Amino acid sequence: MTSTEAFETVLNETAKTVTATLKDVFGSHRLIVGTPHRLLDAMRHGVLNGGKRLRPFLVLETAKLFSAPQQAAMDVAIALECIHCYSLIHDDLPAMDDDSVRRGKPTVHKAFDEATAVLAGDGLLTLAFGLIAEAESIPPAPRIALISALSRRAGVAGMVGGQMLDMNAQDHDLKDIEITRMQTMKTGALLSFACEAGAIVGGATVDHRNRLRHLGEVLGRAYQLSDDLLDETGDAGAMGKAARKDRGQGKKTMVALHGVDWAKDRLYDLSVEAEELLKHYGDQATTLRAATRYIVSRSH
Amino acid sequence: MTSTEAFETVLNETAKTVTATLKDVFGSHRLIVGTPHRLLDAMRHGVLNGGKRLRPFLVLETAKLFSAPQQAAMDVAIALECIHCYSLIHDDLPAMDDDSVRRGKPTVHKAFDEATAVLAGDGLLTLAFGLIAEAESIPPAPRIALISALSRRAGVAGMVGGQMLDMNAQDHDLKDIEITRMQTMKTGALLSFACEAGAIVGGATVDHRNRLRHLGEVLGRAYQLSDDLLDETGDAGAMGKAARKDRGQGKKTMVALHGVDWAKDRLYDLSVEAEELLKHYGDQATTLRAATRYIVSRSH
Repeated sequence: MTSTEAFETVLNETAKTVTATLKDVFGSHRLIVGTPHRLLDAMRHGVLNGGKRLRPFLVLETAKLFSAPQQAAMDVAIALECIHCYSLIHDDLPAMDDDSVRRGKPTVHKAFDEATAVLAGDGLLTLAFGLIAEAESIPPAPRIALISALSRRAGVAGMVGGQMLDMNAQDHDLKDIEITRMQTMKTGALLSFACEAGAIVGGATVDHRNRLRHLGEVLGRAYQLSDDLLDETGDAGAMGKAARKDRGQGKKTMVALHGVDWAKDRLYDLSVEAEELLKHYGDQATTLRAATRYIVSRSH
Repeated sequence: MTSTEAFETVLNETAKTVTATLKDVFGSHRLIVGTPHRLLDAMRHGVLNGGKRLRPFLVLETAKLFSAPQQAAMDVAIALECIHCYSLIHDDLPAMDDDSVRRGKPTVHKAFDEATAVLAGDGLLTLAFGLIAEAESIPPAPRIALISALSRRAGVAGMVGGQMLDMNAQDHDLKDIEITRMQTMKTGALLSFACEAGAIVGGATVDHRNRLRHLGEVLGRAYQLSDDLLDETGDAGAMGKAARKDRGQGKKTMVALHGVDWAKDRLYDLSVEAEELLKHYGDQATTLRAATRYIVSRSH
């Protein structure tokens, strides 16, 4: 078994636990009582769809660095995954990326309808903040810090703003720096929240918070770059979506702009940067090191 | 000057203050730095559009009953108005109510485009929770209570769920009890949050919180009923939108089901119920009494 395969086993195990917890949440009294059936079904369709649960994984793993209570980390991980899934539902809408299939299944607006997809996304986004606010596993101060950070990273100067830049990009060619800004906001912001969240629930210092946020940004850039490489080199099976789709839609990527070799060199640089940040955590960061290698190498 | 006219003056004054504060928020460093221009413009279009600011008014007035700091009440009022405005932007979308005009101006998806409208709504919703989380005017415990209550009232068992039921209703005739449930969720939930929020920022007892939440529900039912009466009797000028529009779309209202006289009797009952709840607050509740009369009488 290669180290990548070994890591995939770990990631899959975590994904199973996260998905089981999500199933509990979406089958809980809180959600079943009062939620229209069709809306709850649409949210479940959007959330329980076999995702890799990379963001929850990063919350759980970074929380371990600070011996944070498992339950506290899981509560944040679940809320973050709700945000990620809402963003996918809205991004798939006809007015946005107009995708019919995600992870081999119809997207929410295809399986239900557009109005239901908009509302399922709104519902997940609204729920995420409530889940953190009500997470008794986390003391009040970090709970508030988490909500503030999540609002900023998922909001108009973060993920939502990144999607806006991505939509605008379809009308004109982006420059190098504009692509980086868009991707940092669209993908990087939630990954950097994931890593920083572990430090927050672990009651870590501001230095640790900043370092892990930085790690999340580095992993976000690497993730996006390897995604673009996969898109360019065209291994559709590894992506679960049509290869070259992004280029087909006229979306400029850094790989399209600078070439495959440049991208591979850049991925190597990013892996070194991540290793440097993880040195502070010694052996405790073994799994996060494997995660870094996994993100960097999945496109090779 | 009639008492209704006097109250309208008070409401308009509050609306001016709220709108000025919203302008500050949407011109603040926090939002200008990092938010794509077009997205910020779309959010401003959706928020600074001459609304009556009834929900902020109710937060501010109920907070006065408990001598809560003005700044704390305003911070919540602004967040709540962001939620209300996001819901209007999404409700107006072609896949939802498909409205082109709101308060005499093009809706956000008409003035911009659908994708921008979806993202502007998402951005406002995300921002609202961050504004409360970062409201230093409010101690940590009530801040968390506010976020939890807002998430529940604005979420899938509240406002978002109500809009879902409203969408479903276009396909079949709703029964009496189903209309009530839909309207309680769609309109009542945010108004009940508005009133309860004043009690929360004022550090009031659970009894007060429950009573004011109840007041908000009563005002919500009255508001909806007078809205439906206006729709039925057709004073388009008073509504700022096309009269009989809801009936024209085949939406069943309680007025359509039970008639104008029944609705007026019911409005009277609701005003008595509100007066009973406000008795606990004596002269301090004079403005809230005027608000009740205003809501009840605007359709006569």
